[in-house]
Amino acid sequence: MSDDGPKPIRIGLLGRGNVGAAFAELLAERAVAVEAATGRRPELAGVLTRSEGDFSEILASSDLVVELMGGIDPAKEYVIDALRAGKPVVTANKQLLAQHGDELFGIAREAGVQLRFEAAVAGVIPIVRTIQESFGVTKIEKVFGIVNGTTNFILSEMAASGAGYDEVLKQAQELGYAEADPSDDVSGADAAAKMAILARLAFHTPVTLAEVPYEGIEAIQPDDLAYAKELGLSLKLLGVAERRDGGISVRVFPCFLYRGHPLAPIEGPFNAVMVEAPAITEVTMSGPGAGGIQTASAVLGDVVSILAGEAPVHETRTELPIVADVSSSFYLYLEVADQPGVLARVATVLGDHDVSVKSVVQRGAGEEARLVMVVHECLESRFAAAIQALGELPELRAPARSIHVIEEQF
Amino acid sequence: MSDDGPKPIRIGLLGRGNVGAAFAELLAERAVAVEAATGRRPELAGVLTRSEGDFSEILASSDLVVELMGGIDPAKEYVIDALRAGKPVVTANKQLLAQHGDELFGIAREAGVQLRFEAAVAGVIPIVRTIQESFGVTKIEKVFGIVNGTTNFILSEMAASGAGYDEVLKQAQELGYAEADPSDDVSGADAAAKMAILARLAFHTPVTLAEVPYEGIEAIQPDDLAYAKELGLSLKLLGVAERRDGGISVRVFPCFLYRGHPLAPIEGPFNAVMVEAPAITEVTMSGPGAGGIQTASAVLGDVVSILAGEAPVHETRTELPIVADVSSSFYLYLEVADQPGVLARVATVLGDHDVSVKSVVQRGAGEEARLVMVVHECLESRFAAAIQALGELPELRAPARSIHVIEEQF
Repeated sequence: MSDDGPKPIRIGLLGRGNVGAAFAELLAERAVAVEAATGRRPELAGVLTRSEGDFSEILASSDLVVELMGGIDPAKEYVIDALRAGKPVVTANKQLLAQHGDELFGIAREAGVQLRFEAAVAGVIPIVRTIQESFGVTKIEKVFGIVNGTTNFILSEMAASGAGYDEVLKQAQELGYAEADPSDDVSGADAAAKMAILARLAFHTPVTLAEVPYEGIEAIQPDDLAYAKELGLSLKLLGVAERRDGGISVRVFPCFLYRGHPLAPIEGPFNAVMVEAPAITEVTMSGPGAGGIQTASAVLGDVVSILAGEAPVHETRTELPIVADVSSSFYLYLEVADQPGVLARVATVLGDHDVSVKSVVQRGAGEEARLVMVVHECLESRFAAAIQALGELPELRAPARSIHVIEEQF
Repeated sequence: MSDDGPKPIRIGLLGRGNVGAAFAELLAERAVAVEAATGRRPELAGVLTRSEGDFSEILASSDLVVELMGGIDPAKEYVIDALRAGKPVVTANKQLLAQHGDELFGIAREAGVQLRFEAAVAGVIPIVRTIQESFGVTKIEKVFGIVNGTTNFILSEMAASGAGYDEVLKQAQELGYAEADPSDDVSGADAAAKMAILARLAFHTPVTLAEVPYEGIEAIQPDDLAYAKELGLSLKLLGVAERRDGGISVRVFPCFLYRGHPLAPIEGPFNAVMVEAPAITEVTMSGPGAGGIQTASAVLGDVVSILAGEAPVHETRTELPIVADVSSSFYLYLEVADQPGVLARVATVLGDHDVSVKSVVQRGAGEEARLVMVVHECLESRFAAAIQALGELPELRAPARSIHVIEEQF
């Protein structure tokens, strides 16, 4: 064999699903560009699938491992073996990082090798790199956004067409924007895993999936979206991680946004993330949230960064407490008896709980009578108590419905 | 002196204006975070101002140089001296990079030290890092956006208030969004320097300021903005760098955007940049375009990256030709005689030049009669020829006014 330049960099690929196949193709297509950028030509050392390949053999012949299998077992074991063998790892596995991040980052630090994961959050949007590197020493106050494309597509379609959740979900499945079993996406669990990862990076504190409460979009009614439109609101499934009262709050929930909000125009299967800090004001990044080729691009960006030089292995620095009770503005939908004095009684109950009304519309008559309102920011525990007290009113014909709102001046 | 850990990293600061002073303050404030992230405590080795400090002394005692003086002389000489002395340099100096990038990057490569410049383009938005690192091997088709906050503020205010350019410029100066001499901003020259830098990064080809044609906002009329509103358009000063016909096109010009465009909602002194490539679809990033503390944050991000590890020194890879004649959609404003058949004559002239009308409104009567239209995308040379031919029509009461438009489906 002749020696014609630097040795190629050998990549072990674990998984050949949608993203894995796209990555293999993109790697071949961009091999010349990778060599130009890093001085080393990349080539696949081997591919592990459910039916083919042997992990130990692939690991032994790889300089770097790309894990695109998903799931915890056996992905976790493979990532750990690779790191312990001194091989840098790139992964798109949000569940693995959200559930076992501490252990994996610790092993990577011990071994002195990189573990990169841009593709695990918000697809091709470089939010992981931005938070870790550009804003690595910035005191971030808040990271929030739309981190699940499936639910954003469903909510956009429901708002545009007036159709119900089930109908739009079926449409999303037909278009490939939702999986056959969509529960991870529509329940908010997928977004919660991503927010756990972003919170860890932004606040340098360990956060695991189990610490992120989440609420999905399954219960959203077309009626809510119709009224919201009248009020100038659009609905998004938001993930929010923020400093609160000396600790942090990390959650996922459906939330109305006023038209002027930077996230309001994000429609369809797109993601968008905002970072807020006094020193940067706010930075917003948006793009496709998923897709094989887009996710593969994010993976390739990480591979190139590893080849091009060293970057710091993420390390947590402090242990901040998780704060559960935070304040928020709310949308409130009440089916009420059509009789004089109803609004006064409702307002009195809200006032007794220090919940103040920002705007209200009365609609319909008789069996169709309802009050729709937005209340100013208040502690969630107070609002929950107010809702419970409203439930005692004989004038209420059905349980109150409520949804978070971000106020115009946020 | 006792030895209590790794040696501090000594930073030589050139310039103590708005950004320089903010950087010195931010560095002190975040010193602990920098040490946590990089293992080394930063401290100022010295500050060079117009009246104080000696460059040679500061350089000799620095591990890293931050250049925030602006201008070409003596900044260029200082940056070169620092690089040749093996000291990494962080700069926010867009004019320096846009005019002398080839020379400076070449010296940095030769010396094997980093030259970083995130703060030179779009303030705190991490567009330089994103293009260089995340999308470093992506075949980027187009980079474009709002890269000057002063002009975006002026255009936003003109559209909102109906006031004229001069009045709004004065207001921007009072608010600190425009300088006493605003010519660099309002002429488009500042944006052109930034686009030269972005084009170099995106396309790996040398581009200098002299190769970027630019047009400013001084001639924009309140009337244009009022009609545009009726057509659902908003006006932005856009910088565009894109692959065209085997080469690239890099330009700055005022441009209407339809309401659904991701850049349309960017108001006030904000910047926003979009990157398009088949493998990523599109990614949009927005945030404050300037401001002392925000720019200082971008500078600090670069300093931390240098301390944390090696990143590649940018190298151009190919020499792509500059393409001058590209296609675009246009807004066209014609003051016409109030008589039958005018629209037909105008449409005939446009049709003769293969320029096709997308939408048109006729307004006013007598001396106030005018035609306002949007035409579909066509080669600029064709459109210019059509405009010239329109000038021959006796029915035109004044020279035609035209402004670029990005069509809804772009």
